[in-house]
Amino acid sequence: MKKVKLAVIGAGNVGRIHVENIVNKLDNAELVAVSDFYPEKYNEIASEKGWPLARKEYREILKDEEVDAVVIATPAALHGDMIIESAKAGKDVFCEKPLDYDKEKIVEIMKIVEETGIKLQIGFNRRFDKNFMKAKELVETGKLGDIHVIKITSRDPSPPGMEYFTAPGGEHCSIYTDTTIHDFDMVRFFNPAEVVEVYAMGSKLINKDVEEITRDDTCVITLRFEDDSLAVIDNSWEAVYGYDQRSEVFGTKGAVTVENDVFSETTLHATEGIISEKPLVTIKDRYGESYANEIKAFVDAIQNDAKVPVDAYDGLISIVIADAARLSAEENRPIKIKELMPEM
Amino acid sequence: MKKVKLAVIGAGNVGRIHVENIVNKLDNAELVAVSDFYPEKYNEIASEKGWPLARKEYREILKDEEVDAVVIATPAALHGDMIIESAKAGKDVFCEKPLDYDKEKIVEIMKIVEETGIKLQIGFNRRFDKNFMKAKELVETGKLGDIHVIKITSRDPSPPGMEYFTAPGGEHCSIYTDTTIHDFDMVRFFNPAEVVEVYAMGSKLINKDVEEITRDDTCVITLRFEDDSLAVIDNSWEAVYGYDQRSEVFGTKGAVTVENDVFSETTLHATEGIISEKPLVTIKDRYGESYANEIKAFVDAIQNDAKVPVDAYDGLISIVIADAARLSAEENRPIKIKELMPEM
Amino acid sequence: MKKVKLAVIGAGNVGRIHVENIVNKLDNAELVAVSDFYPEKYNEIASEKGWPLARKEYREILKDEEVDAVVIATPAALHGDMIIESAKAGKDVFCEKPLDYDKEKIVEIMKIVEETGIKLQIGFNRRFDKNFMKAKELVETGKLGDIHVIKITSRDPSPPGMEYFTAPGGEHCSIYTDTTIHDFDMVRFFNPAEVVEVYAMGSKLINKDVEEITRDDTCVITLRFEDDSLAVIDNSWEAVYGYDQRSEVFGTKGAVTVENDVFSETTLHATEGIISEKPLVTIKDRYGESYANEIKAFVDAIQNDAKVPVDAYDGLISIVIADAARLSAEENRPIKIKELMPEM
Amino acid sequence: MKKVKLAVIGAGNVGRIHVENIVNKLDNAELVAVSDFYPEKYNEIASEKGWPLARKEYREILKDEEVDAVVIATPAALHGDMIIESAKAGKDVFCEKPLDYDKEKIVEIMKIVEETGIKLQIGFNRRFDKNFMKAKELVETGKLGDIHVIKITSRDPSPPGMEYFTAPGGEHCSIYTDTTIHDFDMVRFFNPAEVVEVYAMGSKLINKDVEEITRDDTCVITLRFEDDSLAVIDNSWEAVYGYDQRSEVFGTKGAVTVENDVFSETTLHATEGIISEKPLVTIKDRYGESYANEIKAFVDAIQNDAKVPVDAYDGLISIVIADAARLSAEENRPIKIKELMPEM
Repeated sequence: MKKVKLAVIGAGNVGRIHVENIVNKLDNAELVAVSDFYPEKYNEIASEKGWPLARKEYREILKDEEVDAVVIATPAALHGDMIIESAKAGKDVFCEKPLDYDKEKIVEIMKIVEETGIKLQIGFNRRFDKNFMKAKELVETGKLGDIHVIKITSRDPSPPGMEYFTAPGGEHCSIYTDTTIHDFDMVRFFNPAEVVEVYAMGSKLINKDVEEITRDDTCVITLRFEDDSLAVIDNSWEAVYGYDQRSEVFGTKGAVTVENDVFSETTLHATEGIISEKPLVTIKDRYGESYANEIKAFVDAIQNDAKVPVDAYDGLISIVIADAARLSAEENRPIKIKELMPEM
Repeated sequence: MKKVKLAVIGAGNVGRIHVENIVNKLDNAELVAVSDFYPEKYNEIASEKGWPLARKEYREILKDEEVDAVVIATPAALHGDMIIESAKAGKDVFCEKPLDYDKEKIVEIMKIVEETGIKLQIGFNRRFDKNFMKAKELVETGKLGDIHVIKITSRDPSPPGMEYFTAPGGEHCSIYTDTTIHDFDMVRFFNPAEVVEVYAMGSKLINKDVEEITRDDTCVITLRFEDDSLAVIDNSWEAVYGYDQRSEVFGTKGAVTVENDVFSETTLHATEGIISEKPLVTIKDRYGESYANEIKAFVDAIQNDAKVPVDAYDGLISIVIADAARLSAEENRPIKIKELMPEM
Repeated sequence: MKKVKLAVIGAGNVGRIHVENIVNKLDNAELVAVSDFYPEKYNEIASEKGWPLARKEYREILKDEEVDAVVIATPAALHGDMIIESAKAGKDVFCEKPLDYDKEKIVEIMKIVEETGIKLQIGFNRRFDKNFMKAKELVETGKLGDIHVIKITSRDPSPPGMEYFTAPGGEHCSIYTDTTIHDFDMVRFFNPAEVVEVYAMGSKLINKDVEEITRDDTCVITLRFEDDSLAVIDNSWEAVYGYDQRSEVFGTKGAVTVENDVFSETTLHATEGIISEKPLVTIKDRYGESYANEIKAFVDAIQNDAKVPVDAYDGLISIVIADAARLSAEENRPIKIKELMPEM
Repeated sequence: MKKVKLAVIGAGNVGRIHVENIVNKLDNAELVAVSDFYPEKYNEIASEKGWPLARKEYREILKDEEVDAVVIATPAALHGDMIIESAKAGKDVFCEKPLDYDKEKIVEIMKIVEETGIKLQIGFNRRFDKNFMKAKELVETGKLGDIHVIKITSRDPSPPGMEYFTAPGGEHCSIYTDTTIHDFDMVRFFNPAEVVEVYAMGSKLINKDVEEITRDDTCVITLRFEDDSLAVIDNSWEAVYGYDQRSEVFGTKGAVTVENDVFSETTLHATEGIISEKPLVTIKDRYGESYANEIKAFVDAIQNDAKVPVDAYDGLISIVIADAARLSAEENRPIKIKELMPEM
């Protein structure tokens, strides 16, 4: 079968994970182009590793007939327009989350996807993590019975720097739309029922003394699903012991818990206590494999002309829930999802 | 030092745990009387075990000069009046939670306690569990830094029967005031800051098809403390794998997690998987030791004329939070604690 | 049913555990007398706790008609003669391990036990530990299939002091006959087949630089059973992280592992790592409950005139295996058990 | 830096792991040739995966000037001669364990390696496993103090078939020389001191009723090191719950335990118990990464003209210990390593 020819647009941290995965872990895809607005840093690494060098202008990639599909890993504020341009250029698109901060834009994207018939997959890579896939399998095979409560703890190892807030589009950035959006997608991944209501309680605790930062860095979010099952997500931007990524699905027949991935199964037994390994710290260590798996799934969908496993609708719903959570935290009241759903 | 002479009023499940603990585990106390309205069942066990037999009328105990203090383990609806009678009879009182469903009554109790100078301890036994005490110690010694988020999972092994709702006073019973009240006390135990606001999302899932039961059996409750730290409690009346009692305190320097107590540290490695022990199931197995510890602490306070470790104020606040949670679930809005605080 | 009246002879560390257990945890027994050659230390504790005070002379206890049975917890060198005296006085006997260092003496004991018809139980308390009982249950219910390999790790938290070697009878003391003897009994507890051969490799590592001590403090012992299944025991007199008491039974259908008991189920997640509790350190903390259980079983056997669960034969075989291990280590060759079995 | 051009000789299970690793995981090496005596099966997979096809005759590879180094993964009986031929052809050699069953042949190999100056690395891949490397790091950084006891449990998921014993060279095959040889290398990896004595107790338990098979399938082996520290290895050819690969190093300051790698960190909490994942089953799943790491280390040594991390001497000592273990089991006596060391 013909290899799928991919280009990566945006070669920062996440873009480089995609580049490396495509080069080393995908049998049925080939990386043919890379672009980045500031290509110097990437190109230094790329020339050492033997990866394709990046050009500045992504539009050249869109014109390149050799390119079958693009992987967009640019700042979130650029996603929407780039997806539309790529779709119009006939490229299949894999885009990091969120598809856009603006729900109306996502509805527009959905229309264009339908018109052009291109494939659009959103980068909810956690759906492709072996741990969460195993938990989902237990749900689907009925091992847990009916779902009653889903719990997710999702804590970053360290908070974003000031530039996160001050960069262009930074005014849209929030723990709800950037961090928790993954968790909103995860509760939807675990639960066949849809979310109908959200209540978020948030605080500024990590940055307590940083006056310039006014946004929440810690939050607890409760969700109700259409079948009255519940979910709760707790987030923090700083867990000093590592990237804390646990979850749990509790049902009538039992529960599944997902603990953190660790580097090794070694434990030190010492006078200070029984010390085992901390959770993995970097996104690449913790989710590198799931990033590879999601691109594999995208390439497979292209090769087999099949449905992508996470689509624009998932992208839309997740941002609507995120918006609802942000609004809930601001106005301190539960928000119904339908309040914020755009017309379609 | 003279042994403290105790009487137990109410010899049901929990009362019998107290009887057995006083008889077998307390060096400095003596059980001199027991009363129960239906004493037959207790007396059968008591005569076998060599425990004092129960009389029907608790008022005789209150008149008995030999009795230094009473342990009240009757149905909750009776607590308030019995405490007041006991206080007036000059007895120190240990009373199971809640002190009363009615906050005004608790305020009245507090006044009488002050006037009579008796000691009144409330039965928040989980404060005396070795696991939670160890977690608290980590908080107090600064190992966790500033607290950001407290999490409690508290699931009963099986739901209360229909009589729970239909017994006299059953109209007051709810998951918020009976089950979660322990957890409300626990978040206060862990956090030196006080709770200021509560939001509860509850559902009827276990009893979904039981029309007669209209109350929630599953809930997720979010709390805000005065310093903006947060807590989340999730409850269920039925975890088929056992009595699930976990908690977590997350702070700036780290977190402590408390896992379930198990019967043994054995693990079976078999073709079906690696199978370890389920959580302990009964209250006596899980909390028997903490029930003994709380009575020890009460007796010590009497002997040393010291402050009791959990007092009427703790009883008041916990029921106010519980009421707030119930109201929040009913009205689907966050409730400020001060809204419901009685005048004092 | 009439309570069994017990006397404890020898009120050192282990004797005091027995005293406390009999007083607090046994419904069907009563402690009526205690003796110790140096009673001062015990009596100080006893008068505080309200336990019977000790007299110096144990023979008075043997003459006391009120006493049904004695619990012997004196230094090992005295066990054999005291058992014989007690049996002749018509007392049932519970005796700490080993029954005697001299196998011929144990054979003599066995004869007297048979002649007098008294009950003699040996203090292999680990058979009554909930963890090891659960493991045994898995063996007996066939969950492990045929046993292939048994593994025991048994490490003391700190080595015996010099007086262990220099006290009267100290020349008999060794890691094989004092520490490992428990483990020899445990492999027999787990495996229905009998031990037929032993090979021991020992070293002086902890006391490497203490010239006066010449005996092994670390060892690995391999055992073959009559059905060719194998066992391995590794011992050390010093594990700085606690009293390390693990075991494993591996069979055709699976394995059971027994991990260490800990004080609490709390775990600290910190920058230094994920730190859980160390194994319990003292004998009383780790095995206090199993000490109570074994005396309960002894008292039950007396009350019901039933067979004791661990008898003189178990005492004999364990010391024969221990002797074989010691000889094996000295002569560096495998030793057949039958080489050392006394005539019976 | 120029990529190292590798050829793989022997494309069975293990050979294919090497092929895949070289193709996908090594940046600085290139796979230029493969040979296998029965190339059909490999070639089918290879053409699907896009790997180089295999030719039958490995001697053509040795003549090929393009090839820098060969990876030998043929049946063990062929290793020695192939290494010698390859060395004479000027190729660097990576060879699976054992280098040869015949110690004299290994001494000959060592001489030729010295004369020709080629690099020869032996495939003790477990030294490159992240778990065992972490344990070794704790030893080397002094976290464990002086080593007292090393323990390894190494159980295969299923026993070798009859062809293992009946194939050419099968008369040399044994659990000691094929399975345990890895563990002999691991104790040497963990302990800076050398092994001086071995005692092995083995049994035929799995194949109890297979008359044609006479060799041990279960064993416990005790080792003494030159500094009197001890090690114990227990092996079985069949653990029904997976590939059981645990180890432990116990020293004066603490211990490190290495538990099994698992597929995911999920746990099912159900009425049957708390069920977590079984150990990984296949060599590729469990050690695929360490196979890649060892070849990386080999290629790095070639590129940098550095010493290989595991050399012919390690290969010699491991087979001498294995021979000693086999002899010990046969003659039922401890064997000194120097008894079996060839003249060098």
